Formats: sequence, structure tokens, C-alpha cells
Amino acid sequence: MTPPSKDLPSYQDVGVHAVTGTSAVELPSALTCTGVSARRLKNGAFNGGVAAATSSEFFKSKSLWKPLAKKWDHRLSEESKARKASSLKGAAKYLATPGLISLGGGLPSSDYFPFEHIEIRVPTVGQFSEAETKLTGQNIKIGKHDVPEGKSAFDLAISLNYGQGTGSAQLLRFVTEHTEIVHNPPYQDWQCIIDVGSTSGLDMLYRIFCERGDHVISEEYTFATAVETAAPLGVKFLGVKIDSEGLIPEDLDQLLVNWDEKARGGRKPFVLYTVPSGQNPTGSTQGKVRREEIYKVAQKHDLLIIEDEPYYFLQMQPYTGPNAPPAPLPATHDEFLNSLVPSLLKMDVDGRVIRMDSFSKVISPGARIGWITASSQICERFVRHCEVSTQNPAGFSQVILHRLLDEHWGHTGYLDWLIFIRKEYTQRRDIILQACEKYLPKELASWTPPAAGMFHWIKIAVEKHPDFGKRKVVEIEDDVFQASVKECVLMSPGSWFAAEKEVEHTQLFFRATFAAAAGSDMTEAIRRFSIALKKVFKWEESN
Amino acid sequence: MTPPSKDLPSYQDVGVHAVTGTSAVELPSALTCTGVSARRLKNGAFNGGVAAATSSEFFKSKSLWKPLAKKWDHRLSEESKARKASSLKGAAKYLATPGLISLGGGLPSSDYFPFEHIEIRVPTVGQFSEAETKLTGQNIKIGKHDVPEGKSAFDLAISLNYGQGTGSAQLLRFVTEHTEIVHNPPYQDWQCIIDVGSTSGLDMLYRIFCERGDHVISEEYTFATAVETAAPLGVKFLGVKIDSEGLIPEDLDQLLVNWDEKARGGRKPFVLYTVPSGQNPTGSTQGKVRREEIYKVAQKHDLLIIEDEPYYFLQMQPYTGPNAPPAPLPATHDEFLNSLVPSLLKMDVDGRVIRMDSFSKVISPGARIGWITASSQICERFVRHCEVSTQNPAGFSQVILHRLLDEHWGHTGYLDWLIFIRKEYTQRRDIILQACEKYLPKELASWTPPAAGMFHWIKIAVEKHPDFGKRKVVEIEDDVFQASVKECVLMSPGSWFAAEKEVEHTQLFFRATFAAAAGSDMTEAIRRFSIALKKVFKWEESN
Repeated sequence: MTPPSKDLPSYQDVGVHAVTGTSAVELPSALTCTGVSARRLKNGAFNGGVAAATSSEFFKSKSLWKPLAKKWDHRLSEESKARKASSLKGAAKYLATPGLISLGGGLPSSDYFPFEHIEIRVPTVGQFSEAETKLTGQNIKIGKHDVPEGKSAFDLAISLNYGQGTGSAQLLRFVTEHTEIVHNPPYQDWQCIIDVGSTSGLDMLYRIFCERGDHVISEEYTFATAVETAAPLGVKFLGVKIDSEGLIPEDLDQLLVNWDEKARGGRKPFVLYTVPSGQNPTGSTQGKVRREEIYKVAQKHDLLIIEDEPYYFLQMQPYTGPNAPPAPLPATHDEFLNSLVPSLLKMDVDGRVIRMDSFSKVISPGARIGWITASSQICERFVRHCEVSTQNPAGFSQVILHRLLDEHWGHTGYLDWLIFIRKEYTQRRDIILQACEKYLPKELASWTPPAAGMFHWIKIAVEKHPDFGKRKVVEIEDDVFQASVKECVLMSPGSWFAAEKEVEHTQLFFRATFAAAAGSDMTEAIRRFSIALKKVFKWEESN
Repeated sequence: MTPPSKDLPSYQDVGVHAVTGTSAVELPSALTCTGVSARRLKNGAFNGGVAAATSSEFFKSKSLWKPLAKKWDHRLSEESKARKASSLKGAAKYLATPGLISLGGGLPSSDYFPFEHIEIRVPTVGQFSEAETKLTGQNIKIGKHDVPEGKSAFDLAISLNYGQGTGSAQLLRFVTEHTEIVHNPPYQDWQCIIDVGSTSGLDMLYRIFCERGDHVISEEYTFATAVETAAPLGVKFLGVKIDSEGLIPEDLDQLLVNWDEKARGGRKPFVLYTVPSGQNPTGSTQGKVRREEIYKVAQKHDLLIIEDEPYYFLQMQPYTGPNAPPAPLPATHDEFLNSLVPSLLKMDVDGRVIRMDSFSKVISPGARIGWITASSQICERFVRHCEVSTQNPAGFSQVILHRLLDEHWGHTGYLDWLIFIRKEYTQRRDIILQACEKYLPKELASWTPPAAGMFHWIKIAVEKHPDFGKRKVVEIEDDVFQASVKECVLMSPGSWFAAEKEVEHTQLFFRATFAAAAGSDMTEAIRRFSIALKKVFKWEESN
């Protein structure tokens, strides 16, 4: 087996079989957008019938030169180890018998699905705005029997029946290809499993790996729902210090090196939960080197990394300041993909990263569709869990997303959409930054321009408060929060996002989102927040 | 407070406030289909905006004369007791402040949902078949901004954004009204919560009530997924004997009366899982008296009852035999509703029933939408769980079902659809029964005609097998299964559905579904099964 040459371009679609000596060696052949149709042809017949068993293995490059993922048996929870494959689903193997009539499974007949078709009106590639979609969008009809009628790879008769815990073959093919195009994981046996969104995915991952009394490590400020999902399971979060690039690897290492099982009341942690890009709430983005350092610490302490990346494609154009023209958009798909900080998954030679992707921030939350990418062992445990809980995402969502992403836009059109979305969020971020520069007193408020995501994290110089040292920081925080509401603006207090709830809070932050409000509203909101802040701090411009 | 008179009709919509003495007393006013619009008017403004907080309480009859549900604190698991309300969702109360600009929550803007509209083609009431829908179905357009444009109570901008763990206000209103029309629970503080299907609902209920080492009671043959969902949580199923009407109350009582905590290795069970109508796999349906007896035993032992009812509306027309004309369809909605065996929920004066309903069998499994009905205490714990796992069903599913069920068909049209579906399943059942009567030797096979559901349960006289007593029953079962596959028919062996997996199996059953295969295929399948059965039993017609 020959390792890949470092000189080979990152995104190539070779598909060449070289012969070295007497054994056939398959060269690295990472998928590109343009290689997708050839790959599909090469992979042969597609099985996407009702509740068809499927796997990413059917849709990936064969890359036998890559290492296999590590095994994680020693990390599985009692619950997960005990979970067996469904006996009824085991009977599915007989369904391939030619001429067999099945009175086995309780799948209803599609005759009784009261939908003849559904039609979606969606943007044409390159004309993505709401206004453009009205004018130039396309109506796409999804019929009940499109597959037997040769109109599509997916239809209502299939998508609206029961499915598999993996998600449908049709959508799994798309996300597997997309994942290979963007991340091309450097180990062999990675797979994707479609879930009903990353909150559900995270709940399952905790239950697959953690026992009561365990700790999960994260940034010191983190996604509140991640903490609240873990807490009732008896799993506590531990915060690691952050800087403008997020989680500090040395602090992570020290926490683990100095772990005292008795003092801490739990075994040494082995799960790191991190949001590398546009972290919620701090908006910080780990650079490439930072990610490599974090990965090395994970290797040193044999951690599993849950890489939660809803904002990965909301990595923005660089901030050019209040009066400079915006940075130019990427000219090609390659330029776009190369402009993204490489994911932890992309550097994961061990199969220790469980990446969570989601369509919530880039298509719509109401689709309730995300996916994980992880080693086949972890994916298998995950699917077993889906089978006895969420089963699979809604068929309406799956068939609509498949028709839009796979058959209408295709991989290149989807990347164009992502470039569009990121440009829009860049503009929104710039508005809020300009408002902050205009209204917030520098002496009281400071920030790093977010490089990704939806959140702007404002540090308040709490030591400037007249009562600093006399009152608790969370009391001052609450004063600012209440004064803001009085001024008719809602900002999220930083303490809501503390990884460790019981530790006394000594810093003062507020999180503002630039995702939803209209531009002029955002500016006005920051103006109001400034008034509230100055009032609470008894601050006058002359200060 | 005056208790309801027993002479009042079951489904009335009084809405009258009578005055007795000095205090106003509200008479019982159960909702009927025709009373829905008056009720909505009376309830006033409907709040169905993006992620609007909602509750069944907004949509129910006020029935202050009914008793309140019992409290279940002593039954909650450690996990469920520890689950707190989300701090971020707590901030939602400020959103009502007039003029407030929120930079709080990370809700994306609907500007970036790439769907201008979706359109569905669905049956017109009374012309429900697939062929009729092609000809006379209606196209219904669901726009992005239908709500501000005054076209509908629900649109894509709302449904495709984040939602609440209760499900959307729009769909929750429909299912709450539907539940009141059909079941009118006899206690005050019942509510509905929409979930992503009953498998997920059941998984959550186990986690809300059970600890490792607990037992759940069910019919001795039960839905395999219910057992497989519980097993990894350390929760074992215990089977209670059944007859043609399902679970035998005396056997349930005896199991509990004789419970020996030490011998059993677990505390006395307090959760009964039952499928009262068209039980899977036995097809049995508990009659009204049977249900009352089961409820009494539940009261005696303070059980919670999980009433899993996917097939409730597939209660069929009576079986009239091979050559008799089919029984006439119900002439009115009241006649239809009165023809259904009353649910356990309908007799639940204590709030001890947690009913699980699902659209999977009557609309489509791919909607991934069901709902629970239970006391407000249990619903609150359930919602807290949804918030940190599934969140809410897909917006596509919710908005499509709402448009179809609420705004297109309405409650009466939906009941008409259910009457149609039940007629179709009646015909399918009759085909399989006629095939069994024709092909299966009476001496080897016996059955009770199913009165509901999708399943026909065939008992095989295992004692007629030449090796009976010499070989295990499951070995003979496997012989029949393998011989059937050889004859090109798949039937599900009864042992797959045993509640207690480790107990040796002494009876021989096969389950056939009449849900999916075409009529002629079902007949042929039974013919083939008969051949296989006779071969294994070395049976000749002359016997």
C-alpha cells in the first residue's frame, strides 16, 4: 500500500488503478463535485426502494490505502453495548428472494397516503434571494410514483413510508458525497448517518458513551442546550479556557494531566464537545493550527471529539472595517472550499472525531435534518439507537431536500447557495460591528470580529462598574439585562452559557445574534443596549 | 360544582353557563366536530408565530367540574426529575414587550429558507382513492408568508423555523380538538404533546418513569420494538396472558398481587404497556368491559398505563363471513365514533393513562408525527425531554398535515377519511380471512378474525407435529419459517414477539399482515404458506 503523496492536489478525482510490482494499488481519489456523476456510474445500480437498507459505504471512494479507525469498545456505555439489532429488521434479508410475497412487515400501502404530489418552488442556481425566487424560481413536482415512472430516484411512495435508521439511501448518498468533497476524512471506514437534527444526535451520543458521573469537556462558555441535555443524565460539563481562537489546547491538556479521579468524583473525561467555527456563544473560530493542536491533545489523552459544526459554512468573508469595500467572493468552488478552515474530521487519522452537521442554519431548522460522520463502529451503534427512538427524519423533509439539493441544484449548486448564504451573513455581521463601533464606548465594551456563525460576543469591562467588588458580577449582569429590556432590546447574558453552572461567574459578556433582525433594527438595538449599559455603569461620554 | 348528568349525550357542544344558587357552574360541554368553529371564536386570538409558546389548555373545553389528575412525582425517574426548563427559552417571556428588538435567540431569518411555496395535491372529501385524487384532488399552495398575507394560520416562514417541544400551535390545536371530540378525557388537566412518532415517544416515556432493573408489563406477545427499546435501558418486559380480547385482567392482577421483589430482582412494576385495538402481533381488540376491568386493576395497583393506539381507527366493520355482503358503513360521524370501543383514556378519571396516537398508519409513516395525551404534569416532563432531544417534528410535516387536516378537510373530513381507510382495511382483512379459510387445514391452523389493525395471528397446532415433544417448539417454528421462504412467502414467527425473550417458547404462531400486499398476492401467499406448513407437519389432506 502506498501512502498518498503530499504533492497530489487536495480535491482530485483520479479513479486510476496503478500497478506497482505484482499488487494493484488504488491511488487516493478524493471526490470533487465534477467527479460525482462518474462515481455514481462506477458504483452501479442504486437501491433506494421502500425502507431499503443502505450505507455510506455504497457511495464513498474506496480508499484502502487509508488506515482503519480505532475501536471504541472501551468507551461504549452499558446502554449502548446492550443494544441489539432488531429481530424484525433481520428478516429484511429474505426480501431479496425473487418472487417472494411478504406478509411480514407492517408497512402500510402507499395507496393510502393522501398525497398525489407535492411541488416545491425553489431558487434557480445563482438567483438565490427571496425576490429572485419569486421571479425566476422553478417549480419542481414530486410525485407519488416518480421512481417506477422513471422521473426521479425518490418519490412519495418511498419517502412517506417507513424508512431506515440511517436515513434514506437517496439523501445519504448526497450527504456522503458532500462530506467526502468537503472533508475527505483521512481514515478508511468513515460513514454518515442522517439524524433528526444535532440536538437529538448529541443526546444519543451522550447515551452511547457516557455513564452517570462522567464529565464532558467543552469551551468555558458553550451552547446551553448541550449542557442542559447532558445534566439530567448525570453528565457534567467542564469548561476549558478560551481566547479569540476558542479552546486553548494547553488548558485542555492540563485539565487532563492533573485529573484527580477522587477529588473530581468521576473517571478521567474522554469526550470533548467543541464548536470549532463561529462557536456559540463566543463567535470564535479555531484556526487550522489551533485545530491541529487540539487534535494532538485528544490523541495524547485518547479523547473522542464531538465536532458540532452548524456554522461551518457560515465562515465569512474577512472583516474589512467600517468604510472599506467588502472582500471579493470566492471565484471558484475550489477557492471557496480552500478558504474554509479544515475541519477536525479532515485531520482525523484515528476515527476519533464525531462530526455533527446540520441543515438547520443553511437550509432551514424546520427540516429537522442533520447528520453525523464517524467511524463505522460508532455509526452502527448510532443507527441501532435511531431504530428504537427517532427511527428516521420525516419523509417530507428527506424527499424535498433530496429533490432540491441532489436533483435540482446538485453539489455545485449547493456550494453556490452556501457562498450566497455566507455573503448574506457577512453583510449582517458587518452591520452589527459597525453599530458597535459607533455606539458602544470603547472603555466599556470590547470584542473580536466574528469570523463565522451568527453570534457577536461583547465583553463588558465589569471592573469599571461603580459597585465592582461589592456586588456579584451576575447581579451587575442582571442589571444590564433588565435595563436593556427596559430600553426595548434583548441580549443574552454571558452567564447563561457557562459550561460550569455552579462556579461563581467573574466575567461579564453579552451575546448578540445577527441572524434574524433587519439591518436597521440591529443598529437601533445596539444603540439601545449602549444606553442601558451606560446607565447601569453610570457612564458619561466625558469619562 | 355539579357532576355531569349521566343522561347527557356523549358528544354535545353546549357551551352554556347555567347559574345554580350564587355561583356560575359550567356544564359539561364536550366538543363535537360542528362545535369547533364556535369554540375557536370563543377562545379568541390565536398565537401561532415563530416558535410561539403553546399548550392544549388554549384549545380545550374548560371543564372545571372534572377531577384533577393524580400527581406522579413518586413515579418519575432520576433523569426526568433532574431535567430543568431551558434558560434561553425562559427569556421568551420578554419577547412580548411591545417594540422590543431581540438579538437574543439564534433563530435564522426566513429570508434564507430556499422555498417560495410548496403545493400539495390531496383528495377532496368523499373522493379519497388514489385514482379519484388524480381526477378530482385539489392543489393547495402553502406560501412562505401566508400568515401576514391573511391566507392561512400557518406558513413556511413559521413552520420551517425553530419550534417548540409541544409541536406547533396550529397542529396542536387540531390534535387537541380531535382528542376531545373522540375521547373527551374525564379529568380536567389533560393535554396533548406532538412528538416525532410513537417509537420516540415510548423511548422518552421509559426514560421519564423507569430506572435500570424495572419491569414493564405487557401482553405476553407484544410489539417487538417496544421490548427492544426498553432492553438497553435495563428495563425488562413481563408478559401477561391473553385471550381473544387481549390482556387478561385477572392474570395482570395476580402478577402484581404475588410480586416478590427479592425473587424478581426489582421493585413492583407500575407501568403497563398495552395496545388495546388490533394489537401487534395478535390482532386482538379489548372490548369495553375488558378495558374497564384492566383500568380497575391499574387503579388497584396504582399503575400508569401506556395506551399505544396506532390502529384505533382501523377498528373494522364486523366480519360477515366468506359469502355474505359487507356490513354497511356508518351513516354519520356520531355513529362512526360510537362504533369505536371507548379508549382507556376515555375512562381515565385519575390521569393515569398516557395515550400514544400516531398518523403513521392513517396518513403516512413518513410524516413522523404522533402525539401523546396525558396529565399536564406528565406532558410537562415530556416537553422538557423533547426540548433537549428531538425538539419538534419536521416543519414540512407539520405545515402539510395542518393544511390538509385542519384547513382543507377539517375535523369532519378527517373522520370521513378514517371511515374510508377503515373500509379499505376491512376489505383487505376479508381477503386474507377468506384465503385462510380456503387453504389452511382446520386441524392445523386456527384464528380469531381480527377486529382492528393490520395483523392476522394464526395459531398452529404444534402438538400435531410428528416430532412434538422431541424437538423444541422454536425449532419447529424455524422449520415452518424456512419452508415458507422456500415457497416464496414471508410470515413473521410468533416467537419474535414474545415479551419475555428468555422464557422457553411453547406455542406456535405466525403473524401475517394484510396492510401492504395486493389482494391476489395475499391469497397466493396464504396458499404457499399452507403448502409449507403441510410439508413440515407431513400433513396430507386425507388426515
